[in-house]
Amino acid sequence: MPTNTTDLNPPTRILMGPGPSNVHPRVLRAMATPLVGHLDPAFLEIMDETKELLQQLLQTENDLTFPMSATGSAGMEACLCNLLEPGDEALVCINGVFGERMADIVERLGGRLVPVRAEWGSIVEPEQVATALQSSRPKLIAVVHAETSTGVLQPLSQLAQMAQDRNALLLVDTVTSLGGFPVQADAWGIDAVYSATQKCLSCPPGLAPISLSDKAVSVLNARTKKVQSWYLDLTMVRRYWGQDRFYHHTAPISMIYALREALRLIHEEGLDARFERHRRNHETLVAGLEAMGLSMLVEEGHRLWMLNAVCVPEGIDELQVRQTLLQDYNIEIGAGLGDLKGRIWRIGLMGESSTKNNVLLVLTALEDALRRQGHEMESGAGVEAAMKSYAAAE
Amino acid sequence: MPTNTTDLNPPTRILMGPGPSNVHPRVLRAMATPLVGHLDPAFLEIMDETKELLQQLLQTENDLTFPMSATGSAGMEACLCNLLEPGDEALVCINGVFGERMADIVERLGGRLVPVRAEWGSIVEPEQVATALQSSRPKLIAVVHAETSTGVLQPLSQLAQMAQDRNALLLVDTVTSLGGFPVQADAWGIDAVYSATQKCLSCPPGLAPISLSDKAVSVLNARTKKVQSWYLDLTMVRRYWGQDRFYHHTAPISMIYALREALRLIHEEGLDARFERHRRNHETLVAGLEAMGLSMLVEEGHRLWMLNAVCVPEGIDELQVRQTLLQDYNIEIGAGLGDLKGRIWRIGLMGESSTKNNVLLVLTALEDALRRQGHEMESGAGVEAAMKSYAAAE
Repeated sequence: MPTNTTDLNPPTRILMGPGPSNVHPRVLRAMATPLVGHLDPAFLEIMDETKELLQQLLQTENDLTFPMSATGSAGMEACLCNLLEPGDEALVCINGVFGERMADIVERLGGRLVPVRAEWGSIVEPEQVATALQSSRPKLIAVVHAETSTGVLQPLSQLAQMAQDRNALLLVDTVTSLGGFPVQADAWGIDAVYSATQKCLSCPPGLAPISLSDKAVSVLNARTKKVQSWYLDLTMVRRYWGQDRFYHHTAPISMIYALREALRLIHEEGLDARFERHRRNHETLVAGLEAMGLSMLVEEGHRLWMLNAVCVPEGIDELQVRQTLLQDYNIEIGAGLGDLKGRIWRIGLMGESSTKNNVLLVLTALEDALRRQGHEMESGAGVEAAMKSYAAAE
Repeated sequence: MPTNTTDLNPPTRILMGPGPSNVHPRVLRAMATPLVGHLDPAFLEIMDETKELLQQLLQTENDLTFPMSATGSAGMEACLCNLLEPGDEALVCINGVFGERMADIVERLGGRLVPVRAEWGSIVEPEQVATALQSSRPKLIAVVHAETSTGVLQPLSQLAQMAQDRNALLLVDTVTSLGGFPVQADAWGIDAVYSATQKCLSCPPGLAPISLSDKAVSVLNARTKKVQSWYLDLTMVRRYWGQDRFYHHTAPISMIYALREALRLIHEEGLDARFERHRRNHETLVAGLEAMGLSMLVEEGHRLWMLNAVCVPEGIDELQVRQTLLQDYNIEIGAGLGDLKGRIWRIGLMGESSTKNNVLLVLTALEDALRRQGHEMESGAGVEAAMKSYAAAE
């Protein structure tokens, strides 16, 4: 036995980073439920229920709707490698880490990449895509709905229209938006969508919900070459999630128990109430931060409700601030990634973590951490502004 | 809300199929532990401990040793797609479903497949491989240590010698053997090994432990082309599990909590004691089955201790037998796969499921199920033989 294997005893954190978010006790309890087999009739029923709950959350009737057995990024790879074949053209909107990741995957599978880039912290303008479409005929247009690395919400309606006009598939990354902001797969004309469990679904990380429209399924059915990944090959995985129940791989039973419970909690709260909660806590946090003299990376109107990119003031050691929050308050917030490393903090208000108490706490903790570095501000201004904002909303 | 989302309430099963196996309460409790972030200092420590526990179980000093964030088959794909590039030759030993799966993956990634086939239920003879090596120069030789679809234990020493002589990498699937039978990665000259959590580790499914030797790592480092899978790209994933702690994807926190606890339980029991337990329960089960007039698919000496392939007697409806076991005894056993569908049952004795009580129960239940179909045998013969076998061993 190694000397260091003591009882599992991690600290109790308030998770306000880019995910994972805090998990409801009912979901944790589901995780601890004794297992049945992956072909047990009782489990097949649980799969069907999970699929139905997911369809409701995604507002879709897509039959091919289920969680892939891996984390969100595998959902991204699954959609791309099932819908594209070598030589296929794919237009990818890139304004952050996850757009870059999609582009990387397109190249790995031999696709011809048409990148449309925007500054990190801005949306990709529909006009940019329109311009790119003048000299390309993509099979697929890919875009990140909620760019976790920058806090930007990408408007989708014009892109959906362009995809439809060109008979291209529209692929949307909803890893961070799903469960905290409306995603209407059918009404919006989305052909392929993937997400993750550890953001606004407030389930532990480990699954990637995906959904494909009939149009996407027909593209999948018309493939001339096997999908390059065996594990992510939807032509096989769908036979397990469909009526065949054909064994492909052993499903992560406990994670599916947990996802089902997380989805039940979402539907018990109600989608509208849940989205409104995310909106209100976000707006209040922003009011508090701005009252403290801090500024947001993203302009108003394009900000995510569940992930707030806050500019690090000049002269402040951003790492030191995060360490103060973690060590003295047990609050986790996120750092910037890639080009934004050292320039922003990312404060998550996702799922169970999106609460009034957490907003008030993080404002208080942030004020303390900034004061310790000599940053001047009016005492209690952030919390005061937040309290006013909550009162006004009631 | 869908009408069918009641409280999660699956039946309590005795899991004696091909996996998942039953999970210890301590591991279930670990699953329910509140989350910390995937870059939290407390989690990084848990990762290091998990890695060290895995190294001990695999009997290796390989630095690149950690669980991939998906189920066992993704471990298979990860090893193959990281170590092979398009055009590389790979010799794959095929005597069951999982050898076929390796061959399929080799072809998907553009490798040149050299298949060496043996009958399902038999080992691949080293002579067959020697013959194939006369007309091939494989970069990699792949073999399944414990073929879950047939119950065959593949001897490795001669294959390892041949791989070494030819300067080929040796890749071994230990999905079903690890934790129930010795796997000595370093001493046996294994260059790449993968496993799964839901078999003899008795942890829920969802992770694929892998380990690469220095030789395999140097092949990885010398790649000329990016790994075709982004999600499984070890050149990136290792930076998260190594000292860089560079973000790649959000690790499945709860599953790693659980794996760490399952590995602690294994080391508390002691490897030798654990392997001996698996051996004894297997031998006793076989004694009982044979006393009941049933026969094993695999000849003595090549049988797995954790997965017993039992021939279905003529005239017996094998599905009906499994249904009786499930419905009347809450015991899950497995069906045959592929060519063996309808011809065998697969009785698992893996990890927590490998107990004296389970052996006695399954013999009793099986006798009942067979009698209901008019199969004649001496009453209680299976249990009697098993009790004698246990007594003799004490």
